[in-house]
Amino acid sequence: MSQPSASQSPFRVIDLIRKKRDGGALSAAEIGYLVDGCIKSDGSIPDYQMAAWLMAVVLRGMTREETAALTHAMLYSGEVLDLGFLPAKKADKHSTGGVGDKTSLVLAPLVAAGGLYVPMISGRGLGHTGGTLDKLESIPGFRVGLSVSEFHRVLKACGCSMIGQTEKVAPADRKLYALRDVTGTVESPYLICASIMSKKLAEGTDVLVLDVKTGSGAFMKKEEDAVYLAELMVETGERMGKQMAALITDMNQPLGRMVGNALEVQECIEVLHGGGPADLRDLCLELAAWMFFLGGASKTVEQGKQLSEQIIASGQAFERFRQMVELHGGDIGAIDDPTRLPGTDHRVEVASPQSGYVTAIDCEHVGTACVILGGGRERKEDSVDPAVGIVVHKKIGDKVSAGEALCTIHCHSDAQAARAKTLLEESYQIAAAPPGHKPSLVHRVIYKGEY
Amino acid sequence: MSQPSASQSPFRVIDLIRKKRDGGALSAAEIGYLVDGCIKSDGSIPDYQMAAWLMAVVLRGMTREETAALTHAMLYSGEVLDLGFLPAKKADKHSTGGVGDKTSLVLAPLVAAGGLYVPMISGRGLGHTGGTLDKLESIPGFRVGLSVSEFHRVLKACGCSMIGQTEKVAPADRKLYALRDVTGTVESPYLICASIMSKKLAEGTDVLVLDVKTGSGAFMKKEEDAVYLAELMVETGERMGKQMAALITDMNQPLGRMVGNALEVQECIEVLHGGGPADLRDLCLELAAWMFFLGGASKTVEQGKQLSEQIIASGQAFERFRQMVELHGGDIGAIDDPTRLPGTDHRVEVASPQSGYVTAIDCEHVGTACVILGGGRERKEDSVDPAVGIVVHKKIGDKVSAGEALCTIHCHSDAQAARAKTLLEESYQIAAAPPGHKPSLVHRVIYKGEY
Repeated sequence: MSQPSASQSPFRVIDLIRKKRDGGALSAAEIGYLVDGCIKSDGSIPDYQMAAWLMAVVLRGMTREETAALTHAMLYSGEVLDLGFLPAKKADKHSTGGVGDKTSLVLAPLVAAGGLYVPMISGRGLGHTGGTLDKLESIPGFRVGLSVSEFHRVLKACGCSMIGQTEKVAPADRKLYALRDVTGTVESPYLICASIMSKKLAEGTDVLVLDVKTGSGAFMKKEEDAVYLAELMVETGERMGKQMAALITDMNQPLGRMVGNALEVQECIEVLHGGGPADLRDLCLELAAWMFFLGGASKTVEQGKQLSEQIIASGQAFERFRQMVELHGGDIGAIDDPTRLPGTDHRVEVASPQSGYVTAIDCEHVGTACVILGGGRERKEDSVDPAVGIVVHKKIGDKVSAGEALCTIHCHSDAQAARAKTLLEESYQIAAAPPGHKPSLVHRVIYKGEY
Repeated sequence: MSQPSASQSPFRVIDLIRKKRDGGALSAAEIGYLVDGCIKSDGSIPDYQMAAWLMAVVLRGMTREETAALTHAMLYSGEVLDLGFLPAKKADKHSTGGVGDKTSLVLAPLVAAGGLYVPMISGRGLGHTGGTLDKLESIPGFRVGLSVSEFHRVLKACGCSMIGQTEKVAPADRKLYALRDVTGTVESPYLICASIMSKKLAEGTDVLVLDVKTGSGAFMKKEEDAVYLAELMVETGERMGKQMAALITDMNQPLGRMVGNALEVQECIEVLHGGGPADLRDLCLELAAWMFFLGGASKTVEQGKQLSEQIIASGQAFERFRQMVELHGGDIGAIDDPTRLPGTDHRVEVASPQSGYVTAIDCEHVGTACVILGGGRERKEDSVDPAVGIVVHKKIGDKVSAGEALCTIHCHSDAQAARAKTLLEESYQIAAAPPGHKPSLVHRVIYKGEY
């Protein structure tokens, strides 16, 4: 265990670890040195030194300047797309993840139809939350692994494209995340912020609207944690020259009614056709409105919302989605007739044990039930079954009779559904009286200005 | 970066890291699992996980129970001597390190002559502080690397033996210290306590008197830090069944007048003959008194001091030292005639720039000056020159005339002394008025009882 001599490097890692340990703030140059050093294959900064520094960050925190510097260093550890050749502003949305959280599939074509470009680089599902790429791949033939030139071509042709992160995007994040995962250093808003933003900003967007989830199905169960992270990400993005806003939104129950990859695509198509469940539709309109507003396509958020409604009503949003699917090699037959999307023959109903009202849903359990069915992954290596899922019939505040279905499991057999069924039964709280209040969809907006 | 599966091990390392990160206390079994795992060659607990845990310990601290459990696990990671065959109590002293801190060489024969056994396992000098082994090795022929059976034989024959730590003693401490050294996790009283105590208790002593230094030449510059560490070590030792006490002693100036290996042996011989500088002599008597008291050889500390004075005055202490040197293969001719110890022909005086009083000495600088001369080491691999050193003529409170020698450098040439001379000149503060008070030798006693 030796350190490179001072003559070879501008800083000594041990000094940077000590500085953070003692509550000091590191300069951008010092943070850049750490991030660069940890991804060099010559082991110039060994994992044990990074692990000690990461734990010091978890326990001592970071200033806003440090968080921006870390994000910057991680972002520029890899390829950053330059979409300056596109003739209008680029806008994107990032969600911290939830259950039935499928707004990206609606937003990309909707906002593109409104005149902005939407260059979305998304992730896969992990743990109880789903992932946009898995949902897209339930459309037969849809390719999420486009090359940069193909991505450019699709963006130019239809205004939006949705792809996966390549190995070239933010390699420092990949390296650091793997280390954080095994050293108890995941849970830090500063490190979470830098991880999210370094990946997201690699797509070259001008506008980024954050959908920060809070509640029983979110990573941030407590609203104060969600607000803290949201403020951090908004300020970090602004420091990097981006138009930023964040909505703190409810994840105390699944968004919409569908949980599961093909089922969620089906529900998005309903919204793009002007239908779909109210909560999903409302959140899509809200997020699109913010993307329009920040991208200069509307003067206010309210106008952005009206614009979004018009675009959906005119059929342009659905048409744009259809184009994008086609350009990605997807089967538009399955878009035009969603019964052709992957599905299952078997149904298992989860019945209410009593009459009354739904007062709470353990939303994380609903997500986990979908993972158990094979619709999500516990480990990165797992593959997913696009066909399985859960259709949620009763949500918080709904009246229910004894024996009535709370939700329906789409699966391949009773045996396969057994564990998920038990989990779903346990997820619902039914009481004689209705709940005091239903959770509101948007808890708070983080934006420093008039809107 | 993977973890062993839960089926193979009783705990998951990640859970133990998180527990400490969140301020929880680990059980003895959990701490034992970490310590055992980190020294296994199969990499069952990788360095990056230990580094994260160590940083969490530095920032979250440990309970007294955890500290004792860590010490226990580190101690029993290696060989622990069983000296139960010796017919009297075993007593030892440990110092946290200082400049001119040479009491061990006096204490071992003195306390052995008083009827207790002194099985001393010591270390080498590192940084600005000297080490007992280096001092002993300045006696021609003296072997510090005895086997366990040789150590037993010398102990039986003369009541004391002074050896170096073998590879078999506390391997977990060696492993963890190497990791702490490069991860900014040295500075934790809990980890320092466990490191010191796991090595020291391997020698199988019943009594341990701690000499915890504070001041400009100590590792703990602030007295409150020294007291905190001392209390921690005393309680940890007591939890492990040892008779413990700690003296918080002054290290704002070198102890005695000699700094340098052979010079310090020479000064110890003076003390064993009943002479030597008052501060060194007084501290030796004080520490010996505590060893006698805790070992049951005197009813009070005061009686222990009188016993120590008598043993020195009778010549028995010196005689015991002579025996020990002989049994370790050392040249007793050099003990009987210290001019035969290694020495240098060259002298460089460090003169006072003005008349007045010595008001302060940067004691760490004095130690560093000795290292620069070659009398200590900056890195573990360095060898030391036994002959060089510094003789301190003026100490805090002493009157001095302009041009009078503050200290004399024993070296091989003017050129060799140049940097050390400058450092020594800068170490002294001379003022027109005498200092308000001279530092007292023993600042405080940590002992839970009457004495």
